[in-house]
Amino acid sequence: MNITERTIQVIRNRIRSVPDYPSPGVVFRDITPLMEDGPSLHAAVDALAEATRSLDYDRVISAEARGFVFGTALAYRSRKGLVLARKPGKLPREVISVSYELEYGTDSLEVHADAIPPGTRVLVADDLLATGGTARAMCELVEKSGGSVAGCAFLIELGFLEGRKKLLAGYDVISLINYHDPAAE
Amino acid sequence: MNITERTIQVIRNRIRSVPDYPSPGVVFRDITPLMEDGPSLHAAVDALAEATRSLDYDRVISAEARGFVFGTALAYRSRKGLVLARKPGKLPREVISVSYELEYGTDSLEVHADAIPPGTRVLVADDLLATGGTARAMCELVEKSGGSVAGCAFLIELGFLEGRKKLLAGYDVISLINYHDPAAE
Repeated sequence: MNITERTIQVIRNRIRSVPDYPSPGVVFRDITPLMEDGPSLHAAVDALAEATRSLDYDRVISAEARGFVFGTALAYRSRKGLVLARKPGKLPREVISVSYELEYGTDSLEVHADAIPPGTRVLVADDLLATGGTARAMCELVEKSGGSVAGCAFLIELGFLEGRKKLLAGYDVISLINYHDPAAE
Repeated sequence: MNITERTIQVIRNRIRSVPDYPSPGVVFRDITPLMEDGPSLHAAVDALAEATRSLDYDRVISAEARGFVFGTALAYRSRKGLVLARKPGKLPREVISVSYELEYGTDSLEVHADAIPPGTRVLVADDLLATGGTARAMCELVEKSGGSVAGCAFLIELGFLEGRKKLLAGYDVISLINYHDPAAE
């Protein structure tokens, strides 16, 4: 399978741009219409799987909450395991934790201490690469657990935020749709 | 495909019972080891899909956050759309909201007002049926939007909590693994 320009356009057309959300001047890229349409969701998952086909991984890690959608779909499709990176206090057993900076304050993500056995190759997956904080935290969780990052895959990249630069050098970073212009349709 | 006793046992063996979480005397059913093992996750999704094969639905609805995992997998596998029921303040456009009672206080779930067009048949999916509050709220969101509930599917049912009774009469309620005894292995 090849990812055609037409497939990308079909996916892109299902993303709704919401102006002034969550704050004035920001254009929010709402992927719920894409998810709600069965064929479009399927096409987006398949295209992301195709784009990451050359990466060699054992498990997929994705972050709470919206990130679980593409993380799960990629894991199911490739018959790999899924690791949930969760907000603090959600996991019942011993955890490994990483904090990261937000615009105001900090946040944390956790995985179970045994979720990524040493040597495991992990694909970092999320719907969105914005400033890169969440993706970087997932990479750190993988490495702190003794695993290695097989690559990072995103449905959408907000290229103008340069989140890609926050990911450690040497990682493959793949996105299906890159908004270079903050206000582009 | 038939769901064999052996398949169910393989899935059940991957669920970790964590005693005294989140409070003394409670046994928490931790499905992260099941998700982390690729073949087991795949088998669990396929078994749940098989168990719901007779249901006729257009979209799957699942609730933040862990619920997105099996909701997404079922939607992807059946090429149906996925509706995210989210905590308040997460969706950027006009929403329909439902409140439900917790042990202490109340909580709410929201969907976009256009997520479930009138007449849409929706499968309610979650990893866990406990007291039934979340599932019932999802059913109410479907009906408030003008859709109909095609059935409710759960990986795990805590039968002793009788959450099934909280779901409105006439819904098909399907679970793969039913713990009738709160402390059973």
